[in-house]
Amino acid sequence: MSVSGLVIGIDGGGSKTLAWLADATYSYGAVPLGVGEAGPSNPQSVGWETALENMGRAVDTAFLAAGYSPCKIAAACVAMAGSDRENARHRLNEWSAGRELAERFLPVHDAAALLAAGTPDGYGVAIISGTGSLAFGRSESGKTARSGGWGYLFGDEGSGYAVAIAGLRAVASAADGRTAATLLTDRFLHELAIASPNEMVQAVYARQDDHTWLSSLSQIVVSAANEGDAVA
Amino acid sequence: MSVSGLVIGIDGGGSKTLAWLADATYSYGAVPLGVGEAGPSNPQSVGWETALENMGRAVDTAFLAAGYSPCKIAAACVAMAGSDRENARHRLNEWSAGRELAERFLPVHDAAALLAAGTPDGYGVAIISGTGSLAFGRSESGKTARSGGWGYLFGDEGSGYAVAIAGLRAVASAADGRTAATLLTDRFLHELAIASPNEMVQAVYARQDDHTWLSSLSQIVVSAANEGDAVA
Repeated sequence: MSVSGLVIGIDGGGSKTLAWLADATYSYGAVPLGVGEAGPSNPQSVGWETALENMGRAVDTAFLAAGYSPCKIAAACVAMAGSDRENARHRLNEWSAGRELAERFLPVHDAAALLAAGTPDGYGVAIISGTGSLAFGRSESGKTARSGGWGYLFGDEGSGYAVAIAGLRAVASAADGRTAATLLTDRFLHELAIASPNEMVQAVYARQDDHTWLSSLSQIVVSAANEGDAVA
Repeated sequence: MSVSGLVIGIDGGGSKTLAWLADATYSYGAVPLGVGEAGPSNPQSVGWETALENMGRAVDTAFLAAGYSPCKIAAACVAMAGSDRENARHRLNEWSAGRELAERFLPVHDAAALLAAGTPDGYGVAIISGTGSLAFGRSESGKTARSGGWGYLFGDEGSGYAVAIAGLRAVASAADGRTAATLLTDRFLHELAIASPNEMVQAVYARQDDHTWLSSLSQIVVSAANEGDAVA
């Protein structure tokens, strides 16, 4: 096994970063050697400095877990939301070059990695619905298309974030008497540990920048819907 | 004219704070004596510390403009979004007591002040549609009701913020090919000084916390609608 046969895959997400070091020279497929985990590396939520730091930590930890000193390897791929945009690609390429990560370096967006993981034939459609949302497809002939991935302000339809916000809107609207009463009111008051919908303003805006937390509130909507609440 | 006949009205907004000092003892109505202006005092956008500082500055400047040294006056009223909530009322009362502002102090939400200004008879419906939105009504018998005022995350229907976000969504959706092409695309690219919708992500998220700026983008939607754009 030569060091030059090593490859690394980095999954840079909004809640954590995973780096997998593998040996690609085995004839029956890549063999995983070590995994490293670090904090979030979605630059939209934590900024580029923290994102790159955590990617570096995940990579170093994967080398350590595999029993290697960090060295320049054959190839590396980073899967990260938005990394198909010019500016992001530039930052990632610079980072990879700066630490002499690999001979070949490829940043892809997270849906491309999902598609690769989910389809042995390499074509199909991948739907991401986490904190944000994005759809990405690749045809048999290699043609690709994407839709969504515009973030919480003007995209993210169908994401956890969008579902949670729709639930909060339903509670606000019901409190005003604009729409029907819903199970969601009691559920949100309970989750936020408050006594009345008016207090939602303070309870939610105090954590308005924590999109992971906001998205997690979508569970309330999903469980109320499962119990037959018409609004949810 | 006695100092005890002085009253002050403070309009605490998201972009500026205005304080009007007036003499209420004239038999033909209050006479404005001096106006003070300071920076924003909407605690949701600038935090309580800055909000109270700017209110203090506006009040001091109004006294100065009227030729008075700041002193305890007869009555003061603060109109501010959200000031009908318990926590806000408490903060404002503390601030007023701390600086010995007035014998009587009344915090009201901004729609109540709008209603008072707009209806000589004191009843009717006030609609606020600025950065945020709120409707407030008072009946002839004094019964009041409000709807909205839940902020940009789960309210603000019909506000400048909501209109601007809807415009950005239309451009994103058209760029994906999900909905019809619209004049809005060219207008937003021009306004943001970017070459393609993809660059909107960087251009807009860089200023995502500047709700006043985001709301101002609603002008683009309004002017495109006036020119007959179906999507706008």
